[in-house]
Amino acid sequence: MKVTCVFSRRDPSTVKTISGATVYKTDDILNHKDEIDVLIMCGGSATDLPEQTPAMAKYFNVVDSFDTHKNIPVHFENVDKASKEGGKIGIISVGWDPGMFSLNRLFGSCILKDGADYTFWGKGVSQGHSDAIRRIDGVVDARQYTIPVEEALDAVRSGSQPQLTTRQKHTRECFVVAEDGADLKRIENEIVIMKNYFDEYDTTVHFISKEELDRDHKGIPHGGFVIRTGKTGVNLENNHVIEYRLKLDSNPEFTSSVIVAYARAAYRLNKEGASGCKTVFDIPPAYLSDKSGEELRKMML
Amino acid sequence: MKVTCVFSRRDPSTVKTISGATVYKTDDILNHKDEIDVLIMCGGSATDLPEQTPAMAKYFNVVDSFDTHKNIPVHFENVDKASKEGGKIGIISVGWDPGMFSLNRLFGSCILKDGADYTFWGKGVSQGHSDAIRRIDGVVDARQYTIPVEEALDAVRSGSQPQLTTRQKHTRECFVVAEDGADLKRIENEIVIMKNYFDEYDTTVHFISKEELDRDHKGIPHGGFVIRTGKTGVNLENNHVIEYRLKLDSNPEFTSSVIVAYARAAYRLNKEGASGCKTVFDIPPAYLSDKSGEELRKMML
Repeated sequence: MKVTCVFSRRDPSTVKTISGATVYKTDDILNHKDEIDVLIMCGGSATDLPEQTPAMAKYFNVVDSFDTHKNIPVHFENVDKASKEGGKIGIISVGWDPGMFSLNRLFGSCILKDGADYTFWGKGVSQGHSDAIRRIDGVVDARQYTIPVEEALDAVRSGSQPQLTTRQKHTRECFVVAEDGADLKRIENEIVIMKNYFDEYDTTVHFISKEELDRDHKGIPHGGFVIRTGKTGVNLENNHVIEYRLKLDSNPEFTSSVIVAYARAAYRLNKEGASGCKTVFDIPPAYLSDKSGEELRKMML
Repeated sequence: MKVTCVFSRRDPSTVKTISGATVYKTDDILNHKDEIDVLIMCGGSATDLPEQTPAMAKYFNVVDSFDTHKNIPVHFENVDKASKEGGKIGIISVGWDPGMFSLNRLFGSCILKDGADYTFWGKGVSQGHSDAIRRIDGVVDARQYTIPVEEALDAVRSGSQPQLTTRQKHTRECFVVAEDGADLKRIENEIVIMKNYFDEYDTTVHFISKEELDRDHKGIPHGGFVIRTGKTGVNLENNHVIEYRLKLDSNPEFTSSVIVAYARAAYRLNKEGASGCKTVFDIPPAYLSDKSGEELRKMML
């Protein structure tokens, strides 16, 4: 597995890769068709991937991390059409949510039919919420953490299958650097009442210096929990809890680690003659590994 | 999904099923070939399944829970040959370990290449260890719990990738009913020094009455943890923890719930024309579900 090259919309001479891989203009991509086994799509879900993944899926095996949950069905159709036309594999929505969390929701619901599942996010940095705070007048920089509520986690683990509101599941904590002399009361108020972002949550705002922000909040940690609880037995007298937890120092580095594993699967499936759009639900887990079926059964089963 | 019938080596008239399904003699099984989509093999791993699964795999789609880890490669070959001869699907070693735990070991190692994985069992009843105690002279009944050591779990979760001995990972707790007047000191000593079963563990023995055993220890709970930790980053400066936990009131009921989900996969794969032996590593997760790919992408991805 190696990075052959990188394609950028920027001027290639301004982009330096850590691996040393050569950078080309995105417009030149079709000239490199034969050097590339799998193309990893690194654009954003809002406007990049809905265009780029179908456009490239005709020419390359592709993997993306499209994460606008409600638009996945349309994205799937578009990529499926292009991939089939080109006889290629396109795996979409790879990462941890969607991705590993989705897999755990699926396995949990198939095993414990009589049950309920819960997804909690955090503790982790929400880039979207941090951006929203930065757009407030008088704010220099900001970092927002999403935090699962411990009591809600415990209630779920008890197997009681509670109904939980948005406010009961997560809290939001904000670290804000304000301009000198800015009205902190006003900034705090604008944050906590912000529609769709903060109004449905209990939100705490801390004002700190730029030095503190850079020193204590420079990482991009994230993670969360998928918990399925369910009952079995003649009188449903037995409770079961399946809990999957991620605790990640770097959200983008973990996400890309998942994507690289699925890139291997895309290549192998296509080598076997398969084409079309796939998701993590469709991929036999052994395809992620560089070990043979024989080795896997011996070492890991 | 329904139980069509049950096959037993006992006299069918002495066996009553909870579902009301008819019980037949095992010898009559081939007369019911056309009524059965998938045969779930419920024998033991020591002597039953190595014979029974290959024998039946020629005529039926089969799922078993063969769990003698070191003999899985041979069992796979035997079932593969028979299944291919009969044009059927045989899925072996389904349950939680092997099974869901194996899947989590596989996913973890494919995503976090630079890391280590750890499996802990319990708190739960070990049937084999309970049996071993019952064979000691002067013992009427016994129940043995395997318990993961909390400090070991925390050391693993820290990402330090510790080397842990058998003794450091688990303790064993025994509840024993002794005959009136039995030498309790001798029984306790025979337990804690028992080769392969207890000598490598810190073991606690409690003597209790038959009434207490029946009242407080009648369940068959089990569970455990698969934890993968690994590092990413230019200087491997970022730590990640993937933790999968099961907490089960009934080990056999959860195991059978996993098996039933994979029975659906066996049937569907065979309907598509596939044959041969498979494990959980080979099955696309969507095959476990009764929902269509479209529904799954919309609801769970």
